[in-house]
Amino acid sequence: MNSATERVLLAHGDGGLLTAKLVDEVFLKNLGGQAAGGLLDAAILDGRGRGGSRGGRRRLALTTDSFVVKPVFFPGGDIGSLAVHGTVNDLASVGACPLALSAAFILEEGLEVAVLQRVVASMGKAAARVGVPIVTGDTKVVEKGAADGLFINTTGLGEILPAADLSFGRLRPGDRVLVSGSVGDHGVAVLSQRKGLAFETPVISDSAPLFDLVRPLLERAPGVKFLRDPTRGGLATTLKEIAASAGEVDIVIEEDRIPVRPAVAGACEILGLDPLYLANEGKIIVVVEESGAAEALRILRGHPLGADAAEVGRVEAGRGDLWLVTSLGGTKRLDRLTGEQLPRIC
Amino acid sequence: MNSATERVLLAHGDGGLLTAKLVDEVFLKNLGGQAAGGLLDAAILDGRGRGGSRGGRRRLALTTDSFVVKPVFFPGGDIGSLAVHGTVNDLASVGACPLALSAAFILEEGLEVAVLQRVVASMGKAAARVGVPIVTGDTKVVEKGAADGLFINTTGLGEILPAADLSFGRLRPGDRVLVSGSVGDHGVAVLSQRKGLAFETPVISDSAPLFDLVRPLLERAPGVKFLRDPTRGGLATTLKEIAASAGEVDIVIEEDRIPVRPAVAGACEILGLDPLYLANEGKIIVVVEESGAAEALRILRGHPLGADAAEVGRVEAGRGDLWLVTSLGGTKRLDRLTGEQLPRIC
Repeated sequence: MNSATERVLLAHGDGGLLTAKLVDEVFLKNLGGQAAGGLLDAAILDGRGRGGSRGGRRRLALTTDSFVVKPVFFPGGDIGSLAVHGTVNDLASVGACPLALSAAFILEEGLEVAVLQRVVASMGKAAARVGVPIVTGDTKVVEKGAADGLFINTTGLGEILPAADLSFGRLRPGDRVLVSGSVGDHGVAVLSQRKGLAFETPVISDSAPLFDLVRPLLERAPGVKFLRDPTRGGLATTLKEIAASAGEVDIVIEEDRIPVRPAVAGACEILGLDPLYLANEGKIIVVVEESGAAEALRILRGHPLGADAAEVGRVEAGRGDLWLVTSLGGTKRLDRLTGEQLPRIC
Repeated sequence: MNSATERVLLAHGDGGLLTAKLVDEVFLKNLGGQAAGGLLDAAILDGRGRGGSRGGRRRLALTTDSFVVKPVFFPGGDIGSLAVHGTVNDLASVGACPLALSAAFILEEGLEVAVLQRVVASMGKAAARVGVPIVTGDTKVVEKGAADGLFINTTGLGEILPAADLSFGRLRPGDRVLVSGSVGDHGVAVLSQRKGLAFETPVISDSAPLFDLVRPLLERAPGVKFLRDPTRGGLATTLKEIAASAGEVDIVIEEDRIPVRPAVAGACEILGLDPLYLANEGKIIVVVEESGAAEALRILRGHPLGADAAEVGRVEAGRGDLWLVTSLGGTKRLDRLTGEQLPRIC
């Protein structure tokens, strides 16, 4: 990132390799001295205050996401509900119950107010379903051509459940890797809408709030060590990041065990996409110690959002790699998403 | 806002009358059932938790702002430092010490990485000066033409000083209205840069973090009742909002007492602008009871950012109006900013 002529590419935003490079070389380099543990999806704030009080013992979490999904409305959701779900799911991934959201809008001059109304109503409905108040907001308008319709930023403040003890550092060989349901639904739903494709079986985004699924898992399943929602970059990119961050482990997943809806698999064939790299907006990855895997799976499957949960792999001793055991029995190493497969998927 | 063909105008984002209408009719209508006290610039969160713990007694504040300023670099600052100052100043306006910031970037494909580097470095420097960590972030990239360079959202979590007791409801006839320095500097600095104008005396943005100015005021000046930073919409729009929200009071300000730098006044004449409606990014309005006004002014003037502080008016019994006593001795009623005087000023 030293060339004076280097420019931002779409792939810098796909959640894959170039995103990670940008975060490392631009953001962490300039902000990292202060950032606690790097720019995590959700930061965990200790309970100490600077403002005069002694503070409490609550562990708070803060997370931010901007949403630029195109088109704004897609099967199973819209940018408004997605902006709520995406942010509360980043909180759920660190075991945090959402306390409050902020909502900031960048609007393009000429946007139909009726579109904005519909999006904001959907946001309100999604937030009410989660039970989280949207407490503060901001609106900016830019000239026609200086944005594309509307962009939304939601930032979430959460309180980490006392039962949550989640960190990369707890991963050990033998741990099991679960996923709460089928992968690739959101990516295919948005892409097919964007391209005007209609499939025999419509593909609906899985956009949904995950805290109610996560809470019983943390409170009742023994040995849950790590959670993450596989959004941009998909299951493979997220698992690769987990393996790389945990240190001295690999993750091995089995193709045959990964739930993929037939309609998603079919659409991926037609579109030339890999469901393992497609965004999900209502799924959670769970790393749990071997002895707790069956109970964790039972709890997941007991919730409508986890009905198709599956154990898809395990943690092994290694060097931060992700391996896929294919349906044909071969083994291949998977890396983060590279290229610009899916801009503006969320 | 019922017409099916109504569209978003630039003036919906200028912080004036149409912004207020959009907030009322779209945001509060759809989100307001949940929003505590409306979509305030900074929301105050009570100490109760939902996550299982009893919580502490800390009063937290959450605020969000997106920054779309054009151009990205201007005399006295840039979008990066502005994004830090703007958000910590919204916290300061509710008497809150900043605890943590999030930073979310929307980048246009093709943006020079060197520009991003410079902006992020400036952000890091501004945050370090304030002593607030940027704990979490997000980056999205949109296609060339779908945004304009870069937009930044910063959301801030703060802790309200125990000494702060600030509310519209405390305003009473006789209270004094102070402003911490000259008005209009930021607006003129950005506009002159955008239009490529050079004045004999360059106008520099006042972009600066205000908590260090606010803290001694709250801790040592008696009778401070309300604070607000007059950003978009300027001094007049902000005072009109305060008067309208307080109920049964008017605010009366005197033109001759309002500090305006000669270079700003000159530029406003040339550009046909009113400094009372221009954005400020390093000024605070203080409403204080009469008996505390002299001490509050003394404290403000003791800080470099408040050296030009002045008492500019008073609260009177009334119906929510703002009045200006002009230099010629006449009195005129001022309303919120209307029209699209200054898009993308912050």
